[in-house]
Amino acid sequence: MPTAEKDHVYKILELVGSSEASIEDAIKNAVSRAAKTIRDMKWFEVVQTRGHIENGTVRHYQVTLRVGFTLEG
Amino acid sequence: MPTAEKDHVYKILELVGSSEASIEDAIKNAVSRAAKTIRDMKWFEVVQTRGHIENGTVRHYQVTLRVGFTLEG
Amino acid sequence: MPTAEKDHVYKILELVGSSEASIEDAIKNAVSRAAKTIRDMKWFEVVQTRGHIENGTVRHYQVTLRVGFTLEG
Amino acid sequence: MPTAEKDHVYKILELVGSSEASIEDAIKNAVSRAAKTIRDMKWFEVVQTRGHIENGTVRHYQVTLRVGFTLEG
Amino acid sequence: MPTAEKDHVYKILELVGSSEASIEDAIKNAVSRAAKTIRDMKWFEVVQTRGHIENGTVRHYQVTLRVGFTLEG
Amino acid sequence: MPTAEKDHVYKILELVGSSEASIEDAIKNAVSRAAKTIRDMKWFEVVQTRGHIENGTVRHYQVTLRVGFTLEG
Amino acid sequence: MPTAEKDHVYKILELVGSSEASIEDAIKNAVSRAAKTIRDMKWFEVVQTRGHIENGTVRHYQVTLRVGFTLEG
Amino acid sequence: MPTAEKDHVYKILELVGSSEASIEDAIKNAVSRAAKTIRDMKWFEVVQTRGHIENGTVRHYQVTLRVGFTLEG
Amino acid sequence: MPTAEKDHVYKILELVGSSEASIEDAIKNAVSRAAKTIRDMKWFEVVQTRGHIENGTVRHYQVTLRVGFTLEG
Amino acid sequence: MPTAEKDHVYKILELVGSSEASIEDAIKNAVSRAAKTIRDMKWFEVVQTRGHIENGTVRHYQVTLRVGFTLEG
Amino acid sequence: MPTAEKDHVYKILELVGSSEASIEDAIKNAVSRAAKTIRDMKWFEVVQTRGHIENGTVRHYQVTLRVGFTLEG
Amino acid sequence: MPTAEKDHVYKILELVGSSEASIEDAIKNAVSRAAKTIRDMKWFEVVQTRGHIENGTVRHYQVTLRVGFTLEG
Repeated sequence: MPTAEKDHVYKILELVGSSEASIEDAIKNAVSRAAKTIRDMKWFEVVQTRGHIENGTVRHYQVTLRVGFTLEG
Repeated sequence: MPTAEKDHVYKILELVGSSEASIEDAIKNAVSRAAKTIRDMKWFEVVQTRGHIENGTVRHYQVTLRVGFTLEG
Repeated sequence: MPTAEKDHVYKILELVGSSEASIEDAIKNAVSRAAKTIRDMKWFEVVQTRGHIENGTVRHYQVTLRVGFTLEG
Repeated sequence: MPTAEKDHVYKILELVGSSEASIEDAIKNAVSRAAKTIRDMKWFEVVQTRGHIENGTVRHYQVTLRVGFTLEG
Repeated sequence: MPTAEKDHVYKILELVGSSEASIEDAIKNAVSRAAKTIRDMKWFEVVQTRGHIENGTVRHYQVTLRVGFTLEG
Repeated sequence: MPTAEKDHVYKILELVGSSEASIEDAIKNAVSRAAKTIRDMKWFEVVQTRGHIENGTVRHYQVTLRVGFTLEG
Repeated sequence: MPTAEKDHVYKILELVGSSEASIEDAIKNAVSRAAKTIRDMKWFEVVQTRGHIENGTVRHYQVTLRVGFTLEG
Repeated sequence: MPTAEKDHVYKILELVGSSEASIEDAIKNAVSRAAKTIRDMKWFEVVQTRGHIENGTVRHYQVTLRVGFTLEG
Repeated sequence: MPTAEKDHVYKILELVGSSEASIEDAIKNAVSRAAKTIRDMKWFEVVQTRGHIENGTVRHYQVTLRVGFTLEG
Repeated sequence: MPTAEKDHVYKILELVGSSEASIEDAIKNAVSRAAKTIRDMKWFEVVQTRGHIENGTVRHYQVTLRVGFTLEG
Repeated sequence: MPTAEKDHVYKILELVGSSEASIEDAIKNAVSRAAKTIRDMKWFEVVQTRGHIENGTVRHYQVTLRVGFTLEG
Repeated sequence: MPTAEKDHVYKILELVGSSEASIEDAIKNAVSRAAKTIRDMKWFEVVQTRGHIENGTVRHYQVTLRVGFTLEG
């Protein structure tokens, strides 16, 4: 929850990112993709961490995020 | 949570559909309506099942869904 | 949660209905039974869906509902 | 939770069943499959209801169940 | 949740019982008191366990229960 | 949860009150209405806060309460 | 959850509003801002109430809302 | 959650035990029954406490447990 | 959750404040009292809102807060 | 939640007590230990009940409590 | 939840893995150990992340997983 | 929850640590800072994982922990 910019209204998006490398990378991938169309993202919160298993091995991580951004104007 | 298409980023929408017939129809109505503007919906998750009562009879069902779709590009 | 009739106070009951046929029928059975003594029921919310299994077969469904009705006067 | 057979110890399994037809069918499919190896299943509880969407249409339902059965002897 | 008597509709009450002796006694006190006016109670579920402390000592236990009983006819 | 009157059994009701003015007024309206038929209410707990929007403006607040009262005798 | 307009599909947004004055004002600020771009908002639900503290004093309130509006057509 | 034996992988079972005497006895009964086939159980966690009522009296307690045990090798 | 001051470690306290006037006043009373001994409180989160009823009237509000403050050094 | 002493601010501690004998004893042990340094404890709430298993037998109970006490002055 | 293979019934196991290195390694250790006896694991979900502390240092991570695998035939 | 040292009473603290590098580092930073004043920390549990976003990039991670330590004597 944003606490430093108190005069704004925020909107919260929910995204799922994935990565073969790590939970942090799955978070970064979701944020990077969202940054293409959303400006002023301020914070995220991890809602769920999941992943795929193939041949008895963790294949990649999937992280569901809530992302808050400022509604301008 | 999508598990088969691991290289994508997904966005999650929350919708409420309703039907006089059944819980399944309420789900379908929400998904059909969303399909008018959203391509590449992949999965849904039921968040809540509710409904109206009139004259002591169930009048219709209302189902809240989280729906995931692929963010292209 | 009722939203259309804003001047009333509602009371919420919790009921369990069952049916051999479907989840929807279990809901209807609970509502019908309650209608014998409660007027002005307005809405319900599904709290839990359960059921019995006999001889490896689903025998019937049991649905726990919260039901809201108007307190008159 | 079983209430009628009070002298037993129960074990709880978690299963996911699916169906193109309905939520009830997804439940039945999970229970039928489990009945091949487990005797004395007594009850189930729906933990989550999900599904797939293809081409803007609900393709099938997936229901996660907790299933309780009697541990013999 | 009742599982053995499948043709009935149940109503669920929420009660708080207390006891200086034990959690089990707090449950029994709530059930005994309710039995004065409610017939056909079938099951209970513990929702919360709390208590008072006086002079650094547990003074008594308070247990919140959901109690299910059969709606006749 | 009542903590000061330790020898009683309490019953818990669930109510929804509404107000155009404030969350506190919605609580008071529910309690006042319930006081017409229930003596010895002791405490409440807010379960949910909701409201209606009309023409882009908050029209009124709806608060769901659990209310505890002493079962006499 | 909307209950009066049963033939529509609703979409749910999540917003955070803030106010130095009160929880109700934080709700109103979020709804007013959203009304600039969204027509037909029908209801809200409070998800979380937070705030900032500066110099030992509550500086402002931040309320996270889920807001439902009708999907037209 | 086991904390003392850090090099192992644990599996978690879910069991329901019952007793006419006490909550503790219901726990012990579930653990004793499971000990017939499972070695190296390390810890349990109470998930739910329920029970049956007959003739206005608590007839027995039913406790749902998650039980962790070491996967050998 | 604090988001603006990223190099600090925060500690979270849980407090209950009360007020006869409003929910906001109950929050302020808890924060003011804590400010006597804790410096650098940054944010709060409402965990629960409750209250007392006397003679069928809301007597006062009780709000449980989690309060975050900076651990210096 | 304290309800009888409405003018105070309370602080909530979280403790874990254990006992080989019973859940109630684990609660008492945590409260007794805390009483060495904290005056004016008023109430507790059970957050979690766990325990150890050794050689297929329940070895002891561990109960996590939230404990509320009055902040003086 | 598996979404790509819609004709199967899945069973869900709950496991706890640990690692001194990272959360991801704790996940991998649990999956690798389970792969010795379970074929066709498809997905996992993180239920809880915990760990041990020794001498003021994080000693290792413990992650509880739900793991889904296909029931053959 | 501590399971290996069964005769102690534990106290649980809630902390927020942050790191630009990883979730694990945020955990370690919180634990290291707490180790300056608290001896005998035994375990932690992750309650929430969040973070800041600046210019469309994850700026740092913030992890909320519950940390258990032994109360001596």
